[in-house]
Amino acid sequence: MDIHETLGSLTQELRRGTLIIGVLSQLSEPQYGYSLVTVLAEKGIHIDPSTLYPLLRRLEKQGLLESRWDTNEARPRKYYLISADGAEVYKQLCEEWNSMKQSLDSLLIGGDGHGDGVN
Amino acid sequence: MDIHETLGSLTQELRRGTLIIGVLSQLSEPQYGYSLVTVLAEKGIHIDPSTLYPLLRRLEKQGLLESRWDTNEARPRKYYLISADGAEVYKQLCEEWNSMKQSLDSLLIGGDGHGDGVN
Repeated sequence: MDIHETLGSLTQELRRGTLIIGVLSQLSEPQYGYSLVTVLAEKGIHIDPSTLYPLLRRLEKQGLLESRWDTNEARPRKYYLISADGAEVYKQLCEEWNSMKQSLDSLLIGGDGHGDGVN
Repeated sequence: MDIHETLGSLTQELRRGTLIIGVLSQLSEPQYGYSLVTVLAEKGIHIDPSTLYPLLRRLEKQGLLESRWDTNEARPRKYYLISADGAEVYKQLCEEWNSMKQSLDSLLIGGDGHGDGVN
């Protein structure tokens, strides 16, 4: 694996956890997959449908989302909405996010390097 | 999996990506495993040795860290130091972190829910 691949996979890893918070944050209103991609993209979170759809199914299986099919349109759509458990988990993840952010920012700002001039 | 287990695994997932930044940020000075655990803990990043040691080996394998054994002490210790590639990756991850933080904060603050009163 070369350095660009390594960077790519580490970046994915860094994003993955926050994607879940991003997704949960937008599901107090029902959204179907593609509408969610659009809403998130408008807010600067770019997620590929091929990443989002399995994530939605996984979060539903974990009980954090509920879904229902809307068959009134020509093309049936599956809408997702956050569940009560999901709202609780979301709240806790936001707290975790805030504390993580503080710790990490203190490392990076007060730390001994910004990646420049190291070595 | 109950809700607490789900929360635990999502929290792990959220932390995992940032741990790597935390680790890289502290390795412009050589550290051995346990000294790194201590330094990070002082700065609010708690990482179990059973998580850190495999991570260090993985980052070395990816070429982001260099290591050398110090056999002068009674107990030989393996010291890790960031490599030139590692410093470059660290820099890019910091940029990614900053942009991710901005996007996510805009969702959570300007968004339609903080996990309270959803549903």
